[in-house]
Amino acid sequence: MNVAFDLAEKILAGQRRALAKAITLIESTKHADRLIAEEILTRIIPHTGNSIRLGISGVPGVGKSTLIEALGKYLLQYNKRLAVLTIDPSSPVTGGSILGDKTRMESLAREENAFIRPSPTNGNLGGVGRRTRETMLACEAAGFDFIIVETVGVGQSEVAAASMVDVFMMLQLPNAGDELQGIKKGILELADILVITKADGQQKQMAEHARLEQQRALHLTRHENNWKPPVLTASALEDKGIAQIFESVDECHRIKQSSGQLQLKRQAQARAWFEQELVEGAKDWLVHHLGSSHQLADAESDVIGGRIPASAAVRHIFDQLLSGAESTTKKIRR
Amino acid sequence: MNVAFDLAEKILAGQRRALAKAITLIESTKHADRLIAEEILTRIIPHTGNSIRLGISGVPGVGKSTLIEALGKYLLQYNKRLAVLTIDPSSPVTGGSILGDKTRMESLAREENAFIRPSPTNGNLGGVGRRTRETMLACEAAGFDFIIVETVGVGQSEVAAASMVDVFMMLQLPNAGDELQGIKKGILELADILVITKADGQQKQMAEHARLEQQRALHLTRHENNWKPPVLTASALEDKGIAQIFESVDECHRIKQSSGQLQLKRQAQARAWFEQELVEGAKDWLVHHLGSSHQLADAESDVIGGRIPASAAVRHIFDQLLSGAESTTKKIRR
Repeated sequence: MNVAFDLAEKILAGQRRALAKAITLIESTKHADRLIAEEILTRIIPHTGNSIRLGISGVPGVGKSTLIEALGKYLLQYNKRLAVLTIDPSSPVTGGSILGDKTRMESLAREENAFIRPSPTNGNLGGVGRRTRETMLACEAAGFDFIIVETVGVGQSEVAAASMVDVFMMLQLPNAGDELQGIKKGILELADILVITKADGQQKQMAEHARLEQQRALHLTRHENNWKPPVLTASALEDKGIAQIFESVDECHRIKQSSGQLQLKRQAQARAWFEQELVEGAKDWLVHHLGSSHQLADAESDVIGGRIPASAAVRHIFDQLLSGAESTTKKIRR
Repeated sequence: MNVAFDLAEKILAGQRRALAKAITLIESTKHADRLIAEEILTRIIPHTGNSIRLGISGVPGVGKSTLIEALGKYLLQYNKRLAVLTIDPSSPVTGGSILGDKTRMESLAREENAFIRPSPTNGNLGGVGRRTRETMLACEAAGFDFIIVETVGVGQSEVAAASMVDVFMMLQLPNAGDELQGIKKGILELADILVITKADGQQKQMAEHARLEQQRALHLTRHENNWKPPVLTASALEDKGIAQIFESVDECHRIKQSSGQLQLKRQAQARAWFEQELVEGAKDWLVHHLGSSHQLADAESDVIGGRIPASAAVRHIFDQLLSGAESTTKKIRR
């Protein structure tokens, strides 16, 4: 039996081991693996799109994994199946530094209905999170109701995460004064929900203060459609505020769904996905058919250095393709 | 003499008519015109990058053109040369609706040292503002010291404008309460400078109130590098606040320049430009060599419709290219 077909069937039957294998193929940089991965994805894609896709972001130390553990336990209680995917821009090719830490989400990882997987995001794979989206689709096909895409609050990874989820949630520490300054421009604006973490013990009052401050800031800068981003407080330690987070996520998702916004958002995300793949595909193809990546890299650095206009650089590259393709053809004929 | 060479020389000599001709070639969708345009751009690009690039955005009615006229007159006073380019997403292929209105910036348009040009942004040209960047480079080569890229506060055009300028300025009406709600998510965050317009007559106090409100909102959400976006008030009618705007633009530009930020920003913009051209170039090339645009459009809609994963759709397209190129080769040989 065809490997892709076999794995696709097993994924649709909810088999975790097949899912894990498929993700390994998805993440592989080997050509043969990618071909199988794409065949699997093509087979399962009609069965995707049924989960709630939640993005969670925050700076290191904000308590993402403990909160996700608390969220996970809450979901499992209601017999929901949860997948947690991580976009970690700092992870090395070989592993994923975040989950290199074995104790992370330990209790959640042991659960039958939870699936935890870091995504490598090394340069070779193209855009940040390029493969996370495909992994998310595989998890959906395997019947997970909730997909959490987790990312560290650094650089482009938040934008990548926000570009594949329905609801985007940002976590912040209670010492808001300092924290606010850490927020990158534009990132806060991506958030549908803001959660002040570690609202327990001596930090309880500080968290409430931060909540009010943030609510005021958001109120001033954000009024969009029919959703006003709420600011919540939560404590994973005292298991408080977890239900409220889900109420907000659910409400946000429901409102977006009933207004048709969710469909439009997912369509726009798919269009962007296509365009991203087109760039990466063009690059891969160009490198493959030009025989080396030097020409592409040289063209890019000429544009960045202001030596060539981008349009001329790109045209030059594509013009070379015909002759390249021709010589390939000649080779084949010889 | 070669047309491109001739035009390039004349542009570098500051001849307006040559500049206008070159821009027409830049904006043309005809293949032959584009080849000449790219040759011109390749020749002049070493002489670009010396202007201050200022983006100005705001909703229709905020008073963009009257303010730009006032800014223009101020610059001309100091013997500066100013080019105003417009990204108008609503403009039809044939004209540019904004400057269809002949009275717009009428007095500025008559000045020898001012150059005003709307950019068409019809779908055929690819991304919003794809050609505005090239037009900006041509203006720089022609010796304009100041380039203003103007855009209506709608959708993607602000992002496009911000992606090609050094300093981005947003205009707002004095009735801030309502105005704030009109600001699209993330757009305010692009602004280096905020200007409350029409701060005259009865609206003076309201404008000052709006200024304070905005300053507070920005203070809460934005703390980046060494530049805190100032909120200014201005009246084109009473010719007030114009000098302050230039002081801010100048200071922002100077700080970015001396910190090295400006160079990094321009490099990042050039990289994004290259990538945008690569997508558009790949699309053009694909359409050309696939013989029709149906396959590309079909692939995109299959991805948006969730029927095919983007990676597989893109691979399929590129795989067809070799066979396409092969048959082209055969045809040539026949």
